[in-house]
Amino acid sequence: MTAKRAYMDHNATTDLRPEARAAALYAMEVLGNPSSVHAEGRAVRAIVERARDEVAALAGAKPSELVFTSGGTEAARLAFHAAEAAQGVERLIVSAVEHDAVRASAEVSGLPVDILPVDEDGRADLAALKALLETSDKRALVALMFANNETGVIQPVAEAAAIAHETDSLLLCDAVQAAGKTPLDFVALDADMMMLGGHKIGAPLGVGALVLREGLPFATLAVGGGQEMRRRAGSENVSGIAGFGAAARAALEGLEAFAKLGHLRDSMEEEIASIAPDVRFFGKGAERLPNTSYLSAPGLNAETLLMMLDLDGIAVSAGAACSSGKIGQPRVLDAMRVPGELSLGAVRVSLGWTSEARDVDQFVESWSRAYERARAKTKMNANVAASVTTDTPLAAVES
Amino acid sequence: MTAKRAYMDHNATTDLRPEARAAALYAMEVLGNPSSVHAEGRAVRAIVERARDEVAALAGAKPSELVFTSGGTEAARLAFHAAEAAQGVERLIVSAVEHDAVRASAEVSGLPVDILPVDEDGRADLAALKALLETSDKRALVALMFANNETGVIQPVAEAAAIAHETDSLLLCDAVQAAGKTPLDFVALDADMMMLGGHKIGAPLGVGALVLREGLPFATLAVGGGQEMRRRAGSENVSGIAGFGAAARAALEGLEAFAKLGHLRDSMEEEIASIAPDVRFFGKGAERLPNTSYLSAPGLNAETLLMMLDLDGIAVSAGAACSSGKIGQPRVLDAMRVPGELSLGAVRVSLGWTSEARDVDQFVESWSRAYERARAKTKMNANVAASVTTDTPLAAVES
Repeated sequence: MTAKRAYMDHNATTDLRPEARAAALYAMEVLGNPSSVHAEGRAVRAIVERARDEVAALAGAKPSELVFTSGGTEAARLAFHAAEAAQGVERLIVSAVEHDAVRASAEVSGLPVDILPVDEDGRADLAALKALLETSDKRALVALMFANNETGVIQPVAEAAAIAHETDSLLLCDAVQAAGKTPLDFVALDADMMMLGGHKIGAPLGVGALVLREGLPFATLAVGGGQEMRRRAGSENVSGIAGFGAAARAALEGLEAFAKLGHLRDSMEEEIASIAPDVRFFGKGAERLPNTSYLSAPGLNAETLLMMLDLDGIAVSAGAACSSGKIGQPRVLDAMRVPGELSLGAVRVSLGWTSEARDVDQFVESWSRAYERARAKTKMNANVAASVTTDTPLAAVES
Repeated sequence: MTAKRAYMDHNATTDLRPEARAAALYAMEVLGNPSSVHAEGRAVRAIVERARDEVAALAGAKPSELVFTSGGTEAARLAFHAAEAAQGVERLIVSAVEHDAVRASAEVSGLPVDILPVDEDGRADLAALKALLETSDKRALVALMFANNETGVIQPVAEAAAIAHETDSLLLCDAVQAAGKTPLDFVALDADMMMLGGHKIGAPLGVGALVLREGLPFATLAVGGGQEMRRRAGSENVSGIAGFGAAARAALEGLEAFAKLGHLRDSMEEEIASIAPDVRFFGKGAERLPNTSYLSAPGLNAETLLMMLDLDGIAVSAGAACSSGKIGQPRVLDAMRVPGELSLGAVRVSLGWTSEARDVDQFVESWSRAYERARAKTKMNANVAASVTTDTPLAAVES
């Protein structure tokens, strides 16, 4: 590649932080299994425990509340399994905009699932949550993410947790997308469980954590060895965990700098709105993560748009990246009652700690070109349609 | 540390191979989520697929038969889950010497479990397997490891698979400890599923794979994204997988060199036997991996022996390393009918691709010292006992 590409898909995965690189590489080279009792084993164990402190600090949780996993998806599955097997949960309430990992883990749990609706900006409907909780005396687990991966919309998690607790229900918060982008405080949220992912904050791919409120009963899925205080068997991904710890520390220190990405995002949205008056930024009416913009305009098709942008050296996505490259059902936008013709052309721009103003400029230029082309095509079609309707006899239309 | 330590616990984990280090580090730095459709995503996807080819080559399997996991433990859990949920398996037959990850995953599956006994050298009893299979018409999953992690004893897996298939049952082979130490051929074994682990062959910790015979139905545990052909959701541990691939290639090329470790191991055993005529090497009557020696002598206590060796700069272990540093029930030795006084002092020496003759010399010297001390103590106790019995009136003993 000659020209530098404009990578603007940081909600899918972000650049490895140099601190994470160094920590992961160091950990990788230290010989030993953290479960071994000899000096080598103890040295590796110390690496894991230091990282646990660092990730706990980012989450506002106690180190002992953390269970390291292979990522957010495993953390989600573990959370629902523990809810069903150990926490007395008999029903699930899952927000309509949860990530597929949460949604699917809820579905396979075997427990009945109610979907919690969201408003047009993608915020969970707390009155609906209350009503859903009141339909049954059974303990529910409410799954509400901290911030949505597609829109960046921040959810009223603390309020939802308080409502859940009123009926002795529990709350699971998916903070995979929020961590490192906005301050997290597990204690203040008063969530019962929380999911974290490493690679969204600059750790290597393949590591995450489940945060478990102290004292909450737990049932594991991975069995065998006694790792993670018997909460997750299997030799730890030591280099990934070390990288996760270092990335967490760097992300915590970088929160203020990250907040400033909001200016870049906002100016991008202003510029695009001035070019395309009919553009829509999904979730703009709600509080959002500073780095995320999810936009569409009539006439655009995301699939061709992504290809065109990719050829222009720009990496963005159509919603979540986790579905094998397929552009599927726009579940989040449907939940927000976005008309089909708009969701068809929706692309997500997500900035990261390495983003620069020129990335945004490049995107605005390419997107605008696609927008103008789509508009010209729409106009042409309209003209053809108009000419067909007004000037042409019926027979000619049928031919 | 000043003097070089003698690390002889390669069955717990082995040195990172330089090829794995380079591949993991390279992969870590390539920005992109393998599920993204843009150029960045596709480049990372290519890294994962190249590693799949390399690991498949080590296993003698097709790349499409591999599902990458976070390690052997997850692979075991996945295998039993798939057996129960998709493969029509209604009962389990698990060898008495399987790794805790297999044993525990079988136990939590909810299916009835029969234990397959082993002979005094730790080899599975095939006549017993036949008899167990004949007790029921229900399809069984037989779990028999390729090589035992404690003794190194190689199991008659192909024979067991043939017996299982006669009754339309299936076989799961845990090849975590065998891979890279002896040739593997998934096709020739005719196993239905096989587990692999990365860090035992010089990859970073935290990566493994489940091999699934083509066409065998599968049910996943990790749900959400469509990764691994919908067989294991969650963003891949790309750097770990890349390291696994490179380590697999290096291990495959190094098989002949690894076989030569057998000379080192055998000469060590000879030397020890000449010093300690009452030493016992567990499984020595069977075919073993070339790198493993599991030994004990009367009067030794593994817990104190390990500490003493550790202070002498020698890292060995008492059986498996995966139980949070605790020395638990000697299940493998019990299954081999080893008397309790012998299993109490059993330590495992496992050599690796970085082992040198002087490591072995250091171990022989330290172990022999402990042996002599234990013998002297036993003799003294015997003398005291003798003097008590013959020379001292009863009152004196009670004082």
